[in-house]
Amino acid sequence: MLDKIKQVKKASFVLAASSLEKRNALIEAIARNFENHIALIIEANKKDMQNAKDISSALLDRLYLDEKRIASFISGLKKLICLPDPIGKIQERIQRNNGLEIIKKSVPLGVVGMIYESRPNVTSDAIGICLKSANAVVLKGGSEALYTNKILVELAKEALLKEGFPTSCIELIEDRDGVSQMLHLRGLIDVIIPRGSDRLIKFVVENSQVPVLETGSGNCHIFVDKSADFDMAAKIIINAKTSRVSVCNAIEKLLVHQDIAKDFLPFIILKLREKNVEVLGCKKSKEIVLDICEAQMQDYFEEYLDYKICIKVVCDADEAIEHINHYSSHHSEAIITQDLQNVEKFFQEVDSAVLYHNASTRFSDGDEFGFGAEIGISTQKIHTRGPMGLEALCSYKYLVSGKGQIR
Amino acid sequence: MLDKIKQVKKASFVLAASSLEKRNALIEAIARNFENHIALIIEANKKDMQNAKDISSALLDRLYLDEKRIASFISGLKKLICLPDPIGKIQERIQRNNGLEIIKKSVPLGVVGMIYESRPNVTSDAIGICLKSANAVVLKGGSEALYTNKILVELAKEALLKEGFPTSCIELIEDRDGVSQMLHLRGLIDVIIPRGSDRLIKFVVENSQVPVLETGSGNCHIFVDKSADFDMAAKIIINAKTSRVSVCNAIEKLLVHQDIAKDFLPFIILKLREKNVEVLGCKKSKEIVLDICEAQMQDYFEEYLDYKICIKVVCDADEAIEHINHYSSHHSEAIITQDLQNVEKFFQEVDSAVLYHNASTRFSDGDEFGFGAEIGISTQKIHTRGPMGLEALCSYKYLVSGKGQIR
Repeated sequence: MLDKIKQVKKASFVLAASSLEKRNALIEAIARNFENHIALIIEANKKDMQNAKDISSALLDRLYLDEKRIASFISGLKKLICLPDPIGKIQERIQRNNGLEIIKKSVPLGVVGMIYESRPNVTSDAIGICLKSANAVVLKGGSEALYTNKILVELAKEALLKEGFPTSCIELIEDRDGVSQMLHLRGLIDVIIPRGSDRLIKFVVENSQVPVLETGSGNCHIFVDKSADFDMAAKIIINAKTSRVSVCNAIEKLLVHQDIAKDFLPFIILKLREKNVEVLGCKKSKEIVLDICEAQMQDYFEEYLDYKICIKVVCDADEAIEHINHYSSHHSEAIITQDLQNVEKFFQEVDSAVLYHNASTRFSDGDEFGFGAEIGISTQKIHTRGPMGLEALCSYKYLVSGKGQIR
Repeated sequence: MLDKIKQVKKASFVLAASSLEKRNALIEAIARNFENHIALIIEANKKDMQNAKDISSALLDRLYLDEKRIASFISGLKKLICLPDPIGKIQERIQRNNGLEIIKKSVPLGVVGMIYESRPNVTSDAIGICLKSANAVVLKGGSEALYTNKILVELAKEALLKEGFPTSCIELIEDRDGVSQMLHLRGLIDVIIPRGSDRLIKFVVENSQVPVLETGSGNCHIFVDKSADFDMAAKIIINAKTSRVSVCNAIEKLLVHQDIAKDFLPFIILKLREKNVEVLGCKKSKEIVLDICEAQMQDYFEEYLDYKICIKVVCDADEAIEHINHYSSHHSEAIITQDLQNVEKFFQEVDSAVLYHNASTRFSDGDEFGFGAEIGISTQKIHTRGPMGLEALCSYKYLVSGKGQIR
């Protein structure tokens, strides 16, 4: 495997020096090769589906590909072609008194390692986003998606060859212990992006010597302040909880100001139950709505990814903020209020990637932010935070021009 | 220790919400308290010097403080006061068609962990730079500097108290296994910055679960191309090698184009030897200048930090670039040439933080770049690269304002 990755590193230099036109032609060629071989992709996916009978139906659904899903990731590739080049941008020019001219210029990271589970669209998305940003990519997908990932990478490699790029710009790792090996290749792999279950992400974060861009589990909160418009609050809560329960920008926790709890809780719990959402709550909420289950400490930390929500009554915005900063995964949080002072406080003090006033947390998404592409949502604070577009896969270097200056 | 760091985390929220005026007043108060207690600082430093008799004279020199050195770090604090606020800057405004307004705003990282050796000025610099950027700081200095660091932190804490900040904005870790403990506090410490020996940095990088900003060992190169002006090349090489041998932006390796090697090598080796620099070289250089030692493979990787240089004759710019990308620590490299095409090639293809054309690598420094402050030089590609100023200690968050939008 080491030799394979050394070739990827080499190929990354070719990519870094390639023009936007050549990279766009490459992405176009990959999209076309996928289009021309949809039957092959579906056949490979069927094999994976047959082998994967033992996994949960949710995972099976994530693994499954049909023409519509394939068309969707192909159109994702085509959208990338229209985006501007993130590489070679002059971010800063510094003219020093000694005559030195310093230019700060964006460059690719080099080799991106993707470690992920199930969804084969990640394979296509990662290939597209990495190549657009002139990065080579090492893919380690889940074993359950092996045949699907293999055919996608094979088709992409055909396009690399046709467009005159080294085929090592993209490599798929099939070794069982590939993850552990990748995590030790500091210097060869420039950054690791884990996408998948909490367990996978935690393992990568705790064991990687390569810098990691942690992507997000989302234990997201909505705080309904006492001045909130009830109808707006309900509309946002139902959307953020139920429009898609399995995604990281769905809410898991609802904090309600004590002054309105008596009126608001029965109102919102009725609406949540109409959508088949199981409701848990703190002691105070249970006093107001008797037939909800009492939440345990662990509930406040958990990302359910299910039709389930946990409610807590808080004294004021301060308690809401403190609770969020303690229990949240620092992904996305919203305040519903008419009180602009509390908005300012919430925006200032909550330590999460994306904060909302009177809007659904479901907007935490690269497309919704207008990035045109997304490779995950970062919940860490260094390098990149929130939805990660092409710029998240870039670094920069300083280029200094002199006429013999010494210090 | 865990409780201590939890208090630091709490204090970081107070700092994050504090105004620039309050933070500047705080730094001013710390500088003044240092000024008023110079005798105390020197006394503590004497204790450390006495306890440290067994360490090398180079380390002893780094540990030593006198009035001049103290005045120098105090003036560093005062310079910070004049710098603009890195916090609260609006980096981007995105207006979406659905009416959502997205603002990207700079925020502090939170809690910065500094792990470093010997030089007590790092204690003062780190305190100043962290507070200016509204970050709390956990300091783990070397045990050899314990008394000096203790008095500096004590004086800084007095200023915190006086200016109405929690004293936990700054903590000094004295535990022997403090480093290992810090590396596991992901979630409490937001970033670790190691400064010191290669060994220390490697240990931190390999064992930290907290994101690390790797600062640099500098195995820096100068490539003298065939069109180089010999006098300019010599001036730059002598400056980059000998003006201060113990720093990371000094050069360690010299690559010389084969077409000029026969003339240039005797010329430059004479000048290097005049400055008492020990010269090693590859086989080809040894054929030209007989009395140099032959370099071993390990030499090409090593950062000497001494009056020692290793020379290699290369066929052309391509070989020079390939050599640098393989052996360098990716800190700073220079090309001396009149050939602008080779400059472009070198700037494009060398994968290091700072690249120079016809100038000394010694300019890789926050002050020389005009940053006004520096907390180290990053040799990694994510988050920050090259000299790290105040912005390296910042993250951002997205603030989204709506009117009830759902997705």
